[in-house]
Amino acid sequence: MEKIFEQVLLYDFYGELLTPHQRNIYEDAVCNDMSLGEIAKEHGISRQGVHDLIKRCDKILQDYESKLHLVARFGTVREKIGEIEQLTRLNQTGQMETISGEEPKLQERMERIRSLSREILKEL
Amino acid sequence: MEKIFEQVLLYDFYGELLTPHQRNIYEDAVCNDMSLGEIAKEHGISRQGVHDLIKRCDKILQDYESKLHLVARFGTVREKIGEIEQLTRLNQTGQMETISGEEPKLQERMERIRSLSREILKEL
Repeated sequence: MEKIFEQVLLYDFYGELLTPHQRNIYEDAVCNDMSLGEIAKEHGISRQGVHDLIKRCDKILQDYESKLHLVARFGTVREKIGEIEQLTRLNQTGQMETISGEEPKLQERMERIRSLSREILKEL
Repeated sequence: MEKIFEQVLLYDFYGELLTPHQRNIYEDAVCNDMSLGEIAKEHGISRQGVHDLIKRCDKILQDYESKLHLVARFGTVREKIGEIEQLTRLNQTGQMETISGEEPKLQERMERIRSLSREILKEL
């Protein structure tokens, strides 16, 4: 399950760098959850051929990640965005929400949001 | 000048995808502002060879940009981060600063920051 999740993420970021043929087959396997047999039949190639192509695409995508780190950087940015979402949450009376028991202070909160947004820019 | 700026940005994002040899020469030309003659001498190749290599690297980097759009996406994210910086700016008395003459309202400002941060996540 975790492997599929990683493959989907890698494909999201680097899929455009595969050939159309590689993309078609990789998508069927990874995003459309088709079996090797089904894909082989659909594309008129052997099961072994499908298997090899998927392994080769895994390698290509991982190589790009090892050089550009887009998936890893996306994870970091997503965490920082999550924190900004929490910091900007207001309750029903339009007041800032308390985070881990601390009374919200406008100045500290704004400074934290600024610093998070700068960190995001540095991640890119 | 604008071309150099574009080359530096492309190199920042995709330089890792060039070979070490391509990187050395492209860096000398684009980041270290060396002349074709100086680079040719340093690397023991012809001026024409340096010229061709730089053109080829330009093409490789532009091809990656046309597929992954990292430079363009970075520009968009940087604008949104700029807006967040403006929205979180406080004056000397610790109050939110007025933006284009409008009195700041906590709720609107927090909502705008949230929506900007979500847009950033979608850009990635």
